[in-house]
This record gives sequence, C-alpha cells and structure tokens, in this order.
Amino acid sequence: MTTGRLEAFSDGVLAIIITIMVLGMSAPEGYTFEALKPILPVFLTYVLSFIYVGIYWNNHHHLLQAVNKVNGKILWANLNLLFWLSLFPFATDWMGKNHFEDNPTAIYGAVLFMAAIAFKIMVYCVIQNEGENSNVGKVYSKDKRMNISLFLYLAGIVVSFFLPILSLVIYLGVALMWIVPDPRIEKTLKE
Amino acid sequence: MTTGRLEAFSDGVLAIIITIMVLGMSAPEGYTFEALKPILPVFLTYVLSFIYVGIYWNNHHHLLQAVNKVNGKILWANLNLLFWLSLFPFATDWMGKNHFEDNPTAIYGAVLFMAAIAFKIMVYCVIQNEGENSNVGKVYSKDKRMNISLFLYLAGIVVSFFLPILSLVIYLGVALMWIVPDPRIEKTLKE
Amino acid sequence: MTTGRLEAFSDGVLAIIITIMVLGMSAPEGYTFEALKPILPVFLTYVLSFIYVGIYWNNHHHLLQAVNKVNGKILWANLNLLFWLSLFPFATDWMGKNHFEDNPTAIYGAVLFMAAIAFKIMVYCVIQNEGENSNVGKVYSKDKRMNISLFLYLAGIVVSFFLPILSLVIYLGVALMWIVPDPRIEKTLKE
Amino acid sequence: MTTGRLEAFSDGVLAIIITIMVLGMSAPEGYTFEALKPILPVFLTYVLSFIYVGIYWNNHHHLLQAVNKVNGKILWANLNLLFWLSLFPFATDWMGKNHFEDNPTAIYGAVLFMAAIAFKIMVYCVIQNEGENSNVGKVYSKDKRMNISLFLYLAGIVVSFFLPILSLVIYLGVALMWIVPDPRIEKTLKE
Repeated sequence: MTTGRLEAFSDGVLAIIITIMVLGMSAPEGYTFEALKPILPVFLTYVLSFIYVGIYWNNHHHLLQAVNKVNGKILWANLNLLFWLSLFPFATDWMGKNHFEDNPTAIYGAVLFMAAIAFKIMVYCVIQNEGENSNVGKVYSKDKRMNISLFLYLAGIVVSFFLPILSLVIYLGVALMWIVPDPRIEKTLKE
Repeated sequence: MTTGRLEAFSDGVLAIIITIMVLGMSAPEGYTFEALKPILPVFLTYVLSFIYVGIYWNNHHHLLQAVNKVNGKILWANLNLLFWLSLFPFATDWMGKNHFEDNPTAIYGAVLFMAAIAFKIMVYCVIQNEGENSNVGKVYSKDKRMNISLFLYLAGIVVSFFLPILSLVIYLGVALMWIVPDPRIEKTLKE
Repeated sequence: MTTGRLEAFSDGVLAIIITIMVLGMSAPEGYTFEALKPILPVFLTYVLSFIYVGIYWNNHHHLLQAVNKVNGKILWANLNLLFWLSLFPFATDWMGKNHFEDNPTAIYGAVLFMAAIAFKIMVYCVIQNEGENSNVGKVYSKDKRMNISLFLYLAGIVVSFFLPILSLVIYLGVALMWIVPDPRIEKTLKE
Repeated sequence: MTTGRLEAFSDGVLAIIITIMVLGMSAPEGYTFEALKPILPVFLTYVLSFIYVGIYWNNHHHLLQAVNKVNGKILWANLNLLFWLSLFPFATDWMGKNHFEDNPTAIYGAVLFMAAIAFKIMVYCVIQNEGENSNVGKVYSKDKRMNISLFLYLAGIVVSFFLPILSLVIYLGVALMWIVPDPRIEKTLKE
C-alpha cells in the first residue's frame, strides 16, 4: 500500500479544517471598524490555530515523505490524528468567542495535547513498520521537541485556571518552536 | 478509464463529510465546563460517525486498490455510496442533538444500512467488471462481514423503538468489527 | 500545461459543492418522524442536485480525458463552469425550503441553464485548442444532448410560472437522459 | 521535496475558499424574485471574489509550474498566502451584506492588498531558491503588474472613505488586468 491516497485524504481534511475555522468568524452586524472590535479575539485565535494546522500539515508532510509502506495501523493512527485536529475549529471558536476565559483556554490546550499524543502514536506506528534504523527511526528518536511540547501543553492547561493569558503565550511559544524547520530531518533525508 | 480521479473525488467528498460533521457541534454560549455538558452526546455521536466514515474510507481504499478498470456503472455506484455517506452529518446532528431519542436513532441506523447496501452494490459492479476470479471477486465472495452488518443495522433500527441505547451499542459493535483489518484482503493482495 | 491540477481543483470544488448542499438540510427541532416531514422537499431537491453535480463531474471527467493540452482560455472556461455550479447549493436551498414555489423553481432552472451554457463554452474552447478532428471534436460535434438540454431548461423556466411541478419533471428528465453513459464517447475514446 | 503535496493542499484550500463564500449568500425567507433583491450586492461581491480566487489559483498554478524544488521557507510563504486568501469569505460577506459601505470596502481592499503582498513574498522565496536566472526569476523581475496592483489596492482603500463605489471599480479593474494571461510567462516557459 502506498502513501498516495493517505496523503490526498489527509490534505483534504487539513485543508477543510484550516478553512472552516474562519467560518466561526462571522461578519458583524454593524458596518464600522468599531463593529470589528469584538471579533478581534476570534481573529487572533484563528491566526494561532491556522499556524498550528500549518505546523501539523508540515510535520505530516515530512513524516510521510520518510515512509515507504503503509499498513492498517498507520491508517488508523492517521485517522486518530485527523480526529483531534478536526476539533480545532470547535476549540478555536469557543476560546475566541469567550475572550480567552479560563475553561475554553484549558480545552484548547487539551485539544493541542491530544493532537500531539496522536502524532506521537503515528510516529511510533511508522517506526514499528519501517524499523528503528530507518530514516524516520533515526530522526524521531532524537527529537526532543515532541516531548517538550507535550509538557508545555500540560503546563498551559494547568496555568489556564489561574492566568489564561499566560497559557496563550505558552501555546504560541510551542508553535514558534515548530515553525523553524528541523535541520536534522532535512539533513537525514538528504543523506 | 483509470481509478485516479474517482479516488480523488471520493477522497474529497469523504474528507468534507468527516470534517463538516464537527460543524454540527457549535461552541456553547457559556464559557464553563458545565456549558459543555449538553454537547457531550453530540460529541459522542460525532466520534461514532467519524469512525464510520473512517471505515468507509478504508474499505473504499482497499476496494479500489484491487480495481483495474472503471466503467460508467462503477462511477454511478460510487456516487450512490457517496450520497448515502453525505447524509451522515444530518443523521449525526439529529441524533446527537436529541440525546439518542428513538426516531433519530432509527434514522441513523437507516442511513448506516443504506450506505452498506450502496457499498455492496459497488462491490457487485466491480466484480461484474473484473470477473469472479479477480482479486476483488475472491475476497468479497468470502466476506461475511457485509451481510452480518446489514442484519445488525436492521436489528438496531427495530431495537431503537424500544431501547435506543442498545441500538447504539449495536452500531458501535459493527464499527469495531470493521476496524480490525481484514487479513484475507491483505493476504489476497499480497499473493 | 497538463490537465493534472485543473482536474484536482475542479474535483475539490465539485466535492465541496455536492457535500455543502446537504448543510442546507439542517436537523429539525423535534425528534419524531413527524418533524422530518417539512424537510422532505429539501431532501428531494438535494437528491436532484446531487444527481446533477454527479452528471457534471462525470462529463467533466470524460471531457478532460480527451484533452491533451490546457491553455488560459480553458482555465477560465472551467472557472466559469465551476462558478455556475457553485450556485447549486443556493438554488437547491431556496427551492427546497419554499416547497417548489414558482420563482425558486425558475431560478433553479436558470442556474441549470447557465451551467449548461458554461459547459458548452468549455467544450468549444477545448475543441478550438485540440482541433475539429480531435477526439473531443468528433464526439461533441454529434452530441445533440447538449442542445436538447438547453431547450428543455428554457422550457422548464417558462413552465415554472404556471405549473412548477412540471418543471421539476422536466429537470429530472434531463438528468435521466445524462445518467445513461454516452456510448459514442466511450467508443471514440477506445478507437 | 517536490511540489506535489504543496499543490494538492493549496488546491484544496482554494477550492474550499471559493465554494464557502457562496454560503454567505443564504437563501432568503420569501419566495419571490423580490426577495432576491437584497441579495444582489452579496451576489455581485461573490462574483468579484470568485474572480479573485480564480486569479490567485491561476497565478499559483503558473508560479509552481516554474518551481523545481520546495523548501521550508516556501512552505510557510505559501501558508501565509493561503491565510490571507482564507479571509476572502469574511471580507466578501461583510462588504456584500452592508451594500458596499465605506469601512467594509476598505477592509476588503486591505485583504486584497495583504494577499498580494503574500504572493510577492512567495515569489521572492521561490526566486531565492531557484536563482535569479531561473525561469521564475526572469519572468517576475519584469512583471510590473504586481506593483501596479499593490498601488491600486492602496488607492482603493483610501478612496473607499470618500466614494466606496469607485474602490469597487478599482478592484474590478485590477482583476481584469490579471485575467488576461501573461504572455511573457507562457513564452518563457515554452523556451
């Protein structure tokens, strides 16, 4: 089984998730700049979520490039990842509309956390299939960013009950950590 | 005619169906965990439907891998399948919002039943085109899961008028039966 | 320029159109079969529109299979076709929700008419590019169904002001005429 | 890294954006032609936005055809472009529903401006990667339309505070300037 349709389907789902989020940002009743003000937090959450889906698309792209064969486990690990990512529009909408209140900010962090766990499971299934000495095995065994992210998401969830704005800073920090492309992956792929 | 565009179009439709369902789960007014409670049944139904669309994508993927040529009949059998799958968001939404009342649970089962019939028709059209001794012919002639599913969906519909929660257990049971990859298909494909 | 991305983009748009229409059919408030009754006309319109988008996908598929090169004119003729098809969800929704009243039925016919004109323009651009003796040229020069459809859509629009239900019968009739695959195209392609 | 998935993902996002815009045009309550009247400005804005997304898809298509290798910078430049394009449905909806009032018309122009800047950044990243003497480098170094567009969008934003209808004429003018295919690109690609 090749990766072709797995990529096509995942691209489709990710493309829809990233675009559907903007639907949560409905045009206001008034027609002045003033009327846009209450939408600002929704917009900022949308930007953050857009960056996250972009990061997942990027990492998914990199991961599958190093994959040679797909099995049933990987298909379901991929669907599990897509499931958690599909909750982004909901979490984005709820957090944005409630101006970063504590509980929505915790739920947003929980969705980020579960998506990260799902990605870790998928990497694990791929390594199991390809072998520890494969490209994927070599790259991800050294990757500390995945575990750091998981820890920071948990920290963000806990912090959200006291200072939700700090959680947002943490979520944004993790995102920035991932935007920088991983030189190890690109290097290992080139070898 | 090759399977390329048939797969691309079906992937697109399935990707949209699976993602659009989550739109039925709109962010609640309040901003407390309490406010999420009425959404829980919608969420659980969404999980069930997500698994079902995942199963159909998987089976569709397997079926088309064994197909060499596509004709007009198969195109329309595929569109028929996509039609019934496109009713998933509606059935999911109705059942989730009405907390598993009897009639919505029956309709949900009816959509599952019709989608299964549509898949059976598609398999039949493919076998007619490829021949009984083709890979597809060999695999699906022995497949008892399709008929068992049809029977269980019917049972779920009948049961829904007395004990809707049992219908849900049945629908979930059928889903679990399909998540396990069919070793016969993978074996026959490898031969 | 090859047809690859033109097909991918068109498949995406058609997949979204066909799936988005079902969103117009929102789950009713009540939870009895009775509550589904007012949705029935919406459902029937959805079925009709689903068949039409299926037909366009099919014909688009056939047309592009016979195309070897794409130019700027064809790209824009394709976008023009997609534009009119993108009005299907609106026309479907309006006609379904108003239980086949006269004006919505006329508008529905007008959208069908404009989409058919757009397809005709695209065929013309393709023939201009490929030459009259190309596969496409040979097939479509004999195709009377396109002109018959245009005439019937116009008839349907006129009739809708007196007897909208007859317009629906006409629209359905045209659809059935197109579901049957055109043996001439399949034959010419095989030659 | 090849351009395959970058194109597939972008096609998906653009296909969704172009189709989702039409959702902002919801079917009116009444069932007469009269009831369609208030929707007319929404429809006209939709047409304009459809043309713009079509232009971006076209230009994106042309740009990526001239690209041989993709790096991390280009991936993010592409996501940045898709982000601004994803705001089209919102801007379209707001301007259409408010019948071309001043502020929504300015915001619409601002989104056009930012998308054009994003496209310019992407072209810059591609040229940096491919070299100034590459096809892309040669074509875009002479392209004056990009800078003219940026200037005209700015003019449109300023004008919107005095005479919004003139801004619309400007936005439409820029669109028409881009619909004509650029002979230089097609020529350079043929060489």
